[in-house]
Amino acid sequence: MSAGWFRRRLLPGGPLPSPRPPGPRASPVPYRRPRFLRGSGSGPGATEASRRRDVRPVRSPARGRVLPWNAGYAEIINAEKSEFNEDQASCGQLSIQRSEFGAEEDQEWLTLCPEEFLTGHYWALFDGHGGPAAAIVAANTLHSCLRRQLEAVVEGLVATQPPMNLSGRCICPSDPQFVEEKGIRAEDVVIGALESAFQECDEVIRRELEASGQVGGCTALVAVSLQGKLYVANAGDSRAILVRRNEVRPLSSEFTPETERQRIQQLAFVYPELLAGEFTRLEFPRRLKGDDLGQKVLFRDHYMSGWSYKHVEKSDLKYPLIHGQGRQARLLGTLAVSRGLGDHRLRVLDTNIQVKPFLLSVPQVTVLDLDQLEPQEEDVVVMATDGLWDVLSNEQVARMVQHFLPGNREDSHRFSELAQMLIHSTQGTEDGPMGERQVSYDDVSVFVIPLYSRCQGGSGH
Amino acid sequence: MSAGWFRRRLLPGGPLPSPRPPGPRASPVPYRRPRFLRGSGSGPGATEASRRRDVRPVRSPARGRVLPWNAGYAEIINAEKSEFNEDQASCGQLSIQRSEFGAEEDQEWLTLCPEEFLTGHYWALFDGHGGPAAAIVAANTLHSCLRRQLEAVVEGLVATQPPMNLSGRCICPSDPQFVEEKGIRAEDVVIGALESAFQECDEVIRRELEASGQVGGCTALVAVSLQGKLYVANAGDSRAILVRRNEVRPLSSEFTPETERQRIQQLAFVYPELLAGEFTRLEFPRRLKGDDLGQKVLFRDHYMSGWSYKHVEKSDLKYPLIHGQGRQARLLGTLAVSRGLGDHRLRVLDTNIQVKPFLLSVPQVTVLDLDQLEPQEEDVVVMATDGLWDVLSNEQVARMVQHFLPGNREDSHRFSELAQMLIHSTQGTEDGPMGERQVSYDDVSVFVIPLYSRCQGGSGH
Repeated sequence: MSAGWFRRRLLPGGPLPSPRPPGPRASPVPYRRPRFLRGSGSGPGATEASRRRDVRPVRSPARGRVLPWNAGYAEIINAEKSEFNEDQASCGQLSIQRSEFGAEEDQEWLTLCPEEFLTGHYWALFDGHGGPAAAIVAANTLHSCLRRQLEAVVEGLVATQPPMNLSGRCICPSDPQFVEEKGIRAEDVVIGALESAFQECDEVIRRELEASGQVGGCTALVAVSLQGKLYVANAGDSRAILVRRNEVRPLSSEFTPETERQRIQQLAFVYPELLAGEFTRLEFPRRLKGDDLGQKVLFRDHYMSGWSYKHVEKSDLKYPLIHGQGRQARLLGTLAVSRGLGDHRLRVLDTNIQVKPFLLSVPQVTVLDLDQLEPQEEDVVVMATDGLWDVLSNEQVARMVQHFLPGNREDSHRFSELAQMLIHSTQGTEDGPMGERQVSYDDVSVFVIPLYSRCQGGSGH
Repeated sequence: MSAGWFRRRLLPGGPLPSPRPPGPRASPVPYRRPRFLRGSGSGPGATEASRRRDVRPVRSPARGRVLPWNAGYAEIINAEKSEFNEDQASCGQLSIQRSEFGAEEDQEWLTLCPEEFLTGHYWALFDGHGGPAAAIVAANTLHSCLRRQLEAVVEGLVATQPPMNLSGRCICPSDPQFVEEKGIRAEDVVIGALESAFQECDEVIRRELEASGQVGGCTALVAVSLQGKLYVANAGDSRAILVRRNEVRPLSSEFTPETERQRIQQLAFVYPELLAGEFTRLEFPRRLKGDDLGQKVLFRDHYMSGWSYKHVEKSDLKYPLIHGQGRQARLLGTLAVSRGLGDHRLRVLDTNIQVKPFLLSVPQVTVLDLDQLEPQEEDVVVMATDGLWDVLSNEQVARMVQHFLPGNREDSHRFSELAQMLIHSTQGTEDGPMGERQVSYDDVSVFVIPLYSRCQGGSGH
């Protein structure tokens, strides 16, 4: 991505992505559910839990299908908000091979020593909007992007300290010292690979959806285990938390028009043409109207964490760049998330104003050192799309985990059952931990990843 | 500040600030030490501590001079790095009057009830560079800017919840509800006033230095007490910490080219013309050279928290936008801080490249609720310029505070003596807490603000 790219693709005046691709149109991305759900379904082979509800069954993998680390998974489609379940999920083993860098004898040696390859695991949730296509492409693609990105820098991962030069040559004798002084560790190279993989996947989605004439975008939440660490990369409003016997720890934070207000307002300040005179970049407690003209009202601009007052001018009556509160907050009146993949052709309704310039595809990555953590038998990571977190707090989910797992140690399907239970508790079918019943009308997808069993896990991409 | 302003003033091609102001030149800003040091000095009236060193005396206010809350202050000039002490300090009472908003009867009522005015206190440190002028103007001005900004919004400060409309009128019946939903509190309006005051002061410095033909900039660290809260606003690399019997808590974080790397690289990505083809915005572990061409080396771009590898091209050999490590890190090879006041005419040596577009004058503000804190007798805030923190860690300073204060409860000058002791311990004249001797070659200025005595404090602007 270069500044030229940004200006060409995203600024008014530059050539816009063509509304229809030239040449023959590729066939649409086919709708599907995650591969590891094959053989489940609400017909024969459905789990007990899913059979209990006919109209909107909770789906989980068939009993014989073991996910990496024996993780549990469950999902439910929304209450007729859309025809398809716009959530997607993916998981499996990541096999990282050494790249072809270096001399030929190295290659031969590699063939003899296949154990030099790195193996990791991967779990991902994608929450689509504007159609299911982007989430499906992401679920089909992101792990391959990540594998490719990791393989391109694998020499930087296997050393204690990544070499300045990928070939290992020291152009400058004190190269290792420079890397040391910057504090660059192997995990920083994994984080860099995750950041690059998200961007590469975003570009794949652009190409595939442009070719098939489809639209849409998705959030992405990914957990990757590699060399004793768990990396959680998030772009959007899904969430991952660590639950232990006496601890609940967020492993991601959400990216919405509200949480990224200053970054978004800043871009509109620097490139006002992105708003085409239709929006105001300023934030007010509510949308202003004619009666407010000349009054001094509360406002915030891009450089402010606090609030101040300003005399209302006519331009302040325009629709706000970020409007609404909490779940209702929208970017350009259009989108509820500020990071994710896709949305390359998303326009504000009835205008030519693009949303994509304000979106980031790059995730925020947090790292959990599993060796340091010394996970106990009931320690899990819960990953879920926003449908779950809209009705359950981190603490409520943690209490359900802490209540369910200790009593079910003998059940090898307990993580799957826990995932189903979490989903059921968003459907008003089971009392919440406080006796109340919460209802989510969104798609909901949940992974429960046990950290203790990571050495015994199977694979099931 | 508007986008047009940004482009006009700061982008190549727009009219640059004229190198010489039109009309008669104003006289230079006169050099001075803080007003509250009058009557001290290393001659007669000097404190015992300052008399101990002849060449570079530690200066503190004269014994009769009481600073707000009985705060201690001490300073020392650098070891001949510059002719003047480029640090400046200021403190005093802040008297906030109600603005003339509202009907006339309100005005009359106000005259009868002067106790309705707000009173606060103010302590500030400014660390100048490129000459003492900017820091002197800031020390003379910032408190007035803050008073003006607070007075402009005082109706927003005195209510439990700031009104949507400063006049108190509800244009929309549910205005209070909108403000409530956004979670806007009186302290957010103080934060907004601090943000605006820093920007206003930056503009005063621009005008005054342009008129007098002087140059330079400064950092700014300000503590303000108002309505039971202590606000710490920081733009630059000074630091404030809270020290209690069993706690050390940072109240500010530093803004340097390293800590603000992504923001700075992002601006260079969006406006590459700011680098005039002379710099690369990419970060590498060391400056690249010809031998690196074609190699794959570690790098970071604006969107990356992690590191990746790239093939070195010729443009990567340019001087890096941010270069050097720790204390040596520089923005455009020129400046060690990324936020502060002034520097409007600062150019990269021998070029026309401006540094100011990359600088922010807006501070980060943290809030300490003193009522909640219930300060004990030895609880203090230590504010100091980077000269102190270069050689002493937060924990070392805390240990000195915790060691000195309990044994000196009867001494009414103990906070002043503590400030002097902290300075002495940066001069290699006293053993550090670990037995070692640290030496700072920079100007050093320190406030020690006791939180317990805040009801008994005097004033001394």
